Amino acid sequence: MTGTVEGGAAPRPAASPRDTSGQKREGAVRERLYLYDTTLRDGQQTQGVDFSVEEKLRIAAMLDALGVDYIEGGWPGANPTDSGFFGRVGETRARMTAFGMTKRAGRSAANDEVLAQVVGAGTGAVCLVGKTHDFHVETALGITLEENLENISASLAHLAGLGREALFDAEHFFDGWKANRPYALACLAAAVDAGARWVVLCDTNGGTLPAEIGEIVSDVIAAGIPGDRLGIHTHNDTETAVAGTLAAVEAGVRQVQGTLNGLGERCGNANLTSLIPTLLLKEPWASRYETGVSREALAGLRRVSRTLDDILNRLPMKQAPYVGASAFAHKAGLHASAILKDPTTYEHVDPAAVGNARVVPMSSQAGQSNLRHRLEAVGLEAAKGDPALGRLLELIKAREAQGYAYDSAQASFELLAREELGLMPRFFDVERYRVISERRRNAKGELVIVSEAVVTVTLPGPRQTTSFYQNENPTDQQDAGPVNALAVALAMDLGPYQDFIAGWRLVDFKVRITGGGTEAVTRVILDSEDGEGRRWSTVGVSANIVDASFNALVDAIRWKLVRDGARA
Amino acid sequence: MTGTVEGGAAPRPAASPRDTSGQKREGAVRERLYLYDTTLRDGQQTQGVDFSVEEKLRIAAMLDALGVDYIEGGWPGANPTDSGFFGRVGETRARMTAFGMTKRAGRSAANDEVLAQVVGAGTGAVCLVGKTHDFHVETALGITLEENLENISASLAHLAGLGREALFDAEHFFDGWKANRPYALACLAAAVDAGARWVVLCDTNGGTLPAEIGEIVSDVIAAGIPGDRLGIHTHNDTETAVAGTLAAVEAGVRQVQGTLNGLGERCGNANLTSLIPTLLLKEPWASRYETGVSREALAGLRRVSRTLDDILNRLPMKQAPYVGASAFAHKAGLHASAILKDPTTYEHVDPAAVGNARVVPMSSQAGQSNLRHRLEAVGLEAAKGDPALGRLLELIKAREAQGYAYDSAQASFELLAREELGLMPRFFDVERYRVISERRRNAKGELVIVSEAVVTVTLPGPRQTTSFYQNENPTDQQDAGPVNALAVALAMDLGPYQDFIAGWRLVDFKVRITGGGTEAVTRVILDSEDGEGRRWSTVGVSANIVDASFNALVDAIRWKLVRDGARA
Repeated sequence: MTGTVEGGAAPRPAASPRDTSGQKREGAVRERLYLYDTTLRDGQQTQGVDFSVEEKLRIAAMLDALGVDYIEGGWPGANPTDSGFFGRVGETRARMTAFGMTKRAGRSAANDEVLAQVVGAGTGAVCLVGKTHDFHVETALGITLEENLENISASLAHLAGLGREALFDAEHFFDGWKANRPYALACLAAAVDAGARWVVLCDTNGGTLPAEIGEIVSDVIAAGIPGDRLGIHTHNDTETAVAGTLAAVEAGVRQVQGTLNGLGERCGNANLTSLIPTLLLKEPWASRYETGVSREALAGLRRVSRTLDDILNRLPMKQAPYVGASAFAHKAGLHASAILKDPTTYEHVDPAAVGNARVVPMSSQAGQSNLRHRLEAVGLEAAKGDPALGRLLELIKAREAQGYAYDSAQASFELLAREELGLMPRFFDVERYRVISERRRNAKGELVIVSEAVVTVTLPGPRQTTSFYQNENPTDQQDAGPVNALAVALAMDLGPYQDFIAGWRLVDFKVRITGGGTEAVTRVILDSEDGEGRRWSTVGVSANIVDASFNALVDAIRWKLVRDGARA
Repeated sequence: MTGTVEGGAAPRPAASPRDTSGQKREGAVRERLYLYDTTLRDGQQTQGVDFSVEEKLRIAAMLDALGVDYIEGGWPGANPTDSGFFGRVGETRARMTAFGMTKRAGRSAANDEVLAQVVGAGTGAVCLVGKTHDFHVETALGITLEENLENISASLAHLAGLGREALFDAEHFFDGWKANRPYALACLAAAVDAGARWVVLCDTNGGTLPAEIGEIVSDVIAAGIPGDRLGIHTHNDTETAVAGTLAAVEAGVRQVQGTLNGLGERCGNANLTSLIPTLLLKEPWASRYETGVSREALAGLRRVSRTLDDILNRLPMKQAPYVGASAFAHKAGLHASAILKDPTTYEHVDPAAVGNARVVPMSSQAGQSNLRHRLEAVGLEAAKGDPALGRLLELIKAREAQGYAYDSAQASFELLAREELGLMPRFFDVERYRVISERRRNAKGELVIVSEAVVTVTLPGPRQTTSFYQNENPTDQQDAGPVNALAVALAMDLGPYQDFIAGWRLVDFKVRITGGGTEAVTRVILDSEDGEGRRWSTVGVSANIVDASFNALVDAIRWKLVRDGARA
């Protein structure tokens, strides 16, 4: 019963087998570890975070591709977004899971309307949280210990009877075990006996330290709950959530709960973005356990982490383990020179394994060779030692100090490089732009928003053209605003280049205010697409948000023109 | 030798006894744990961090007041800032420590000019890093294993001979122990025999997990290096630096190295801001160990953490354990209602112990009882069961589905509540606004950005006023843009309310594009401040970024007016 990859009496999630090429070692049979992601549920309890239905769908797709076994999508019935998500999410390889709570006292599971909505989402798995700490039962819920046991039993049995995979989140379990061990264990047993596939030991207020977690898990297993029915759910209030999770696995649990980027209530949940690489790359984990995440998927982890930050408009944590921009940045001179001799001197894993890259100080030789590689990647040649490389590195450093971010705007990087290397045609100059946003009542007395843009451009000849665009919308409808108006006006008459920019359109717009207070600077990153299926990103920086947007727009057009070999 | 508070043959730092009132339990003698802060040295290796001499002095004073035992101030001679710092820092209760490396091979300790500068700073303690991993000795340094041992011996003996407290940082110790245990142990023994007060086991590349650290520390002690001579220095590359430190203490080390706010190379050092509260407030640490940090100093920890962020112009980590703004923020409805009954239900320590406070943000997840408390806190009464409460919760839910976020915009929440409860005066209506952003050449031919706003407002009477504001700036200067122009125009003539909005100003502006593609909606959150030192946040949502900003502006003004009891 202590899990081999195959067999074991407990039912396994009916997910498709995942690609585990490269993961099995000769002669070693590894135990299956199940990853349960609660980014969309517990992660939604992060202060300042909220998901739209579209964002939940996008994140769920990323999680599914990553290879987690369970995706806890939310609490159906608790709010329109969660209900909407479950209504629209399609088939996933991961087991989609609805979250809720055990039934109220004094009614049957079938007659609890909150539970009915959870079940009504129709997911393959349902996870219900319930009390296991006597103090909470009596104080927070105001019911008897027996009633609580009955709530757990009846609720889990209800799920099992409906043919769902049933999970029980044992809330405040570690505090409950410390306060009243027999009762806490009885709660777990009630869930297992009622048909729960998993009971998840939750350190709900994040106050239990790793050594305690290990001891308590060992006791739970010794008391008769098998490890391959046990999950662990920690919070980071003492900065030990990841270590607590590892201690629990070491003691025998086989399901790990967490969130991407350590999102979650208060200080966050156990950070899957840190746990997954450790489980796949570090010993003794890599040899002993197997998850649903392949090495290929792991190499996409940095991108997953960054995409989630983008979706939520959260600043990426530079110092995040494994995936942070600084995770493999070697600033100390001693380290940087040793690294050049042998990367393993200061790196505990290969950055490429998680889709990250080594960073060395810009001014070093290694900085220049990185740059030459990046230039080659966009078809630009620069000889080793070319003084333009040094100048370009300095220019990038200076721009980034001003607020530019080229790692998220590769097209702007390319334009900068081309200019420095003398490989950028002039195309056109913008003499002037003017954009107006207005809210007023129209002739019919309806409240409308008007966006209007005028752009004057100098083309080859030379000659000037001026374009005008206006858009009026009732306030409750889509009005793409000043940036869209500028984009339309700018692209309206580019003379000889007009055919080259056909098909160009903006598809995304990200704004970040960097610095702060009187030093605040706005960085805008625009994503463009064209008829040929290309997608590229450009950046603009200014204290004025419209000006920053405009600069990014001009870069977007110039990139397409130069890439398509536009000629006057 | 396994340290009691008094006695033990090893010399103790000559620091003044610290206030330990309240820390000694009846009958229990606790072991002394020494805190060694390397914010000013290892923390300086954080990407994007650079200290000036003044900043180092300021931080050193904070560290001294906090109660750490050692302050590693930098590497004298390595750069002007470090040398300058040691030249100017005065007396501290903590032992000021200079950092450097063991001497080079082929010369005596007295003749090594790099070491001479380290010693020349005249500090009471000196910490030298040296190799203990055979691979590094041979590959990175290119010397023999014997030569390295001699470097360690001679360097530490040199320090002891000069009457300094000598520390040895055993670089890459855990990897070194795994690769060649006898050699790694021999390096430690060489340092101790030469007179080192402390040997610090460093997990330099951050790849050693807590369980391994515990085992290896136990082995080192069993091999004859006493625990009260041992220190631990971890890095956060697997997000277990804090846990690894605790594991080492549990195994017997008595010096803990780390940085404030987890600064440091790559993913940072062990975070003292998380470790110190755990050591003072959590069991078994609080009962077993005593540090130089008093409960009074601990209550200032949040301020210390925030001040350091301010000095370095780094965004504070909202989710930081203990001291983060969200560390005691209870968003989930279940949590928030239980908290009202008893805070210990969801808090593992009292936030006040670290200078922090509980937060219950209003959002769609909050329940009716939270809502009533929140309203009471702003002076609004609503009876239990008042139907307005239910309507208000539904309204918040619906607005959040549209893109509003109230947990980061509590002032807008309050306005919404007031309107629903019929407690919101009308003040003024905006009939129309118009804002222009333009880039053109002025009469002198310079490129300038112009922001211009016109706002028409209906005031009590009724009468209308129209205000106009224009701002022209060269493109390389601050131009706060369209939102600032609207704010100025809007606040220019509010008739009878004019005095009430004196002192209002915008201090921060955050933009988030939620949804995506054709569903995209822009959410703007504005932070305002006024002459009374209040700070409040408001939110605006629209497809048009200017319109979203304007809505947040209007809320900002209305909040101040209603809070200050403005009358026509």
